[in-house]
Amino acid sequence: MSLSTQAYKGARDFYPEDKRLQNYIFSTFRSVAESFGYEEYDAPILENIELYKAKSGEEIVNEQTYTFKDRGDREVVIRPEMTPSVSRLVAGRRQELGYPLRWYSIPVLWRYERPQRGRLREHWQLNVDIFGIENNQAEHELILLADRIMNQFGAQQSMYKFSLNHRGLMDYIFDSYLQLNSEQAHKIAKLIDKMNKISPEDFASALKDCLDQGQLTNQLDKKLLDLLQISQISDLPSEVADSQPAKELQELIDSLTDSGLANVNFNISIMRGFDYYTGIVFEMNDTDPDNPRSIMGGGRYDGLVGLFGVEPIATVGFGWGDVTLKDFLNTHKLLPTVASQTDVYAVLVGDVYNQAQSLIADLRSQGLRIAVDSTDRKIPAKIKTALKKDIKYALFIGPEELEGNQFNLKNLQSQQEEKLSPQSIVSTIQRTA
Amino acid sequence: MSLSTQAYKGARDFYPEDKRLQNYIFSTFRSVAESFGYEEYDAPILENIELYKAKSGEEIVNEQTYTFKDRGDREVVIRPEMTPSVSRLVAGRRQELGYPLRWYSIPVLWRYERPQRGRLREHWQLNVDIFGIENNQAEHELILLADRIMNQFGAQQSMYKFSLNHRGLMDYIFDSYLQLNSEQAHKIAKLIDKMNKISPEDFASALKDCLDQGQLTNQLDKKLLDLLQISQISDLPSEVADSQPAKELQELIDSLTDSGLANVNFNISIMRGFDYYTGIVFEMNDTDPDNPRSIMGGGRYDGLVGLFGVEPIATVGFGWGDVTLKDFLNTHKLLPTVASQTDVYAVLVGDVYNQAQSLIADLRSQGLRIAVDSTDRKIPAKIKTALKKDIKYALFIGPEELEGNQFNLKNLQSQQEEKLSPQSIVSTIQRTA
Repeated sequence: MSLSTQAYKGARDFYPEDKRLQNYIFSTFRSVAESFGYEEYDAPILENIELYKAKSGEEIVNEQTYTFKDRGDREVVIRPEMTPSVSRLVAGRRQELGYPLRWYSIPVLWRYERPQRGRLREHWQLNVDIFGIENNQAEHELILLADRIMNQFGAQQSMYKFSLNHRGLMDYIFDSYLQLNSEQAHKIAKLIDKMNKISPEDFASALKDCLDQGQLTNQLDKKLLDLLQISQISDLPSEVADSQPAKELQELIDSLTDSGLANVNFNISIMRGFDYYTGIVFEMNDTDPDNPRSIMGGGRYDGLVGLFGVEPIATVGFGWGDVTLKDFLNTHKLLPTVASQTDVYAVLVGDVYNQAQSLIADLRSQGLRIAVDSTDRKIPAKIKTALKKDIKYALFIGPEELEGNQFNLKNLQSQQEEKLSPQSIVSTIQRTA
Repeated sequence: MSLSTQAYKGARDFYPEDKRLQNYIFSTFRSVAESFGYEEYDAPILENIELYKAKSGEEIVNEQTYTFKDRGDREVVIRPEMTPSVSRLVAGRRQELGYPLRWYSIPVLWRYERPQRGRLREHWQLNVDIFGIENNQAEHELILLADRIMNQFGAQQSMYKFSLNHRGLMDYIFDSYLQLNSEQAHKIAKLIDKMNKISPEDFASALKDCLDQGQLTNQLDKKLLDLLQISQISDLPSEVADSQPAKELQELIDSLTDSGLANVNFNISIMRGFDYYTGIVFEMNDTDPDNPRSIMGGGRYDGLVGLFGVEPIATVGFGWGDVTLKDFLNTHKLLPTVASQTDVYAVLVGDVYNQAQSLIADLRSQGLRIAVDSTDRKIPAKIKTALKKDIKYALFIGPEELEGNQFNLKNLQSQQEEKLSPQSIVSTIQRTA
């Protein structure tokens, strides 16, 4: 029986044209992150399961991880997210590192779930984190950075929007304004996190289930449903709008608006699933309803580094997956055609493989990227291969050409052909690159 | 109890200085592979276990893989090597791809074994493969490419050597010259593969165990031990030296010598562990005995793509791990100090975070990579942070500087400080980059 050529379910093979596109996306991520002074780090794809049990949330650990025992009986996980790993690294050198610390990484992550639009089992995620800033300049910088990335991809601000909320504001609403107990607050937070995935009727009914009978006669459910309709901080009940978290959030929205971001809004239903968030949370979405999943999301998690037995540190970070991004770029026709990384297809004419070596080595040393075709196929077949690989130039090398040190270079797009010296080959190709 | 900050055993954390070095190594791999016309591809880190059961060899599958059942009861493996995956991808588009096909990838691979010098559980490996070339120009090109990589790392040819053998030559020796049966041949091949890891006495004794009594009286073991001492093809017994595989091997060594590689030798003990090799096999080693493990190794495996139910295709490939390479570069003092990716540390003086935004955005848009320090620490503390991060320039931004649009730029290496306009800041830094 033959082996299957299928990739593992929910994962992708990257043929060269796919990989070129992925490299384009990653290099855009990198260049913008580095322009803001972020340094790249990395960590192993396998981690101890304890790392996620602490604060990632039960659904992820119990239902969505790739967890197994290694041959030494250690319970390990293929990382489903990077935040616990980056916290581990920072904690490991808590005293030596210089703050503010700006780090980024583009790890591959795995979650066991049903593959669907915007969500695969394997995906890559740009992670950007800043450590050591207690005020909301940290959030300001990260959202600005995300906006610059979108700009680099050619997106207009009308195509995407940022939605912000504050875990402290929700705590204030649950504890002080609605006076819920902590179990109710936790359940309702999880419910709000799923609000956009269920019908309004189901949401209202599930909300009732979270409350007790007496609270329903006080119309606490209606009070909360009314709150969830509000889209301006100033429209919140005054005692809520005057709370410290509400003020911080308003200040951040104002400073982002000042920095030219017209697409930043308060959204009381943004919770972000992870249990470790402690302050402002945010996400970025496509304004096109075809892509409902968030493209980028993050928030403040001041407590995570401290779980490793060192002094806690103020931290804000975001994760930005490649799958939803590609859906976004595709929807808005922003996916470029990335050119071949090969400049020249060297078509050997006759048995000149050995004699052609020094010419080819010389052209390569001058920076040309050259694939050699020394097969005994006819020239048209070789040209066909070059075209299939999207290579722009063909260079013909036969015994006479080697003798005279002059070679025909053909531009396969314009069909123009010239007889050139090696030096002119290099300058001609580099001029048009 | 606190969480541990340790990475999983046998795997590495890459702090920014480690990641910069890894990026330097990977970009050297990439640029040389692309200069030879190779295109990058990638595949998922999880694969079906059947892929390795076919031809990778029992030791790897049964003892060294990270194998587990996913939540859907599929038996999966974190890939221990890339060759089965690349064969799967080529088979999946066997008819559409253009040949000769040149592909490379730098996958992360996992093997469960005792971590030791030159060998960790997690490592990255440059994989370079060429499909569709039946003659040994394929091997010639790959070994030349490996040599160019070493050259790019600054290595002299005296620091490393290539050792070549041919599976067909060994088959000829086992079948025709020594007339062993296939079981004996298989056992002895595995034994020779381990020859350098055991004592000569243990090797001779294990060799006897592979043969039967009659063969020992014919001195077959001595005959083989004598053969294994030979280091020139021309010194082989004439019927062996005249075999087709011996001639192919000699031809390849000669053509590599013609191409300037003075460090290429026949080595009859090179087997390369994988069962899938069918022709010439090769490896590259440090000439310093401190690093006995091969740095790069590969060979011809013409049968693998055909296992997927498509027409087989001639294939040669190699794998080049990052761990032994780093040991090599370290031993020969070739590891560079890679500069920070941040150009400027912007030291904000006073509460000017919002006012400084447009200047900083402007400098970034002109290509500068700027980390902003808006903490309320004193200037010397901020400079200390910049030095810790190896950032070359500090730029001081206060209310008066913003007012006059002139800023002090300090070269932290030379201690020189100049008052400059934004445009001059960009040109000064880019001139010295």
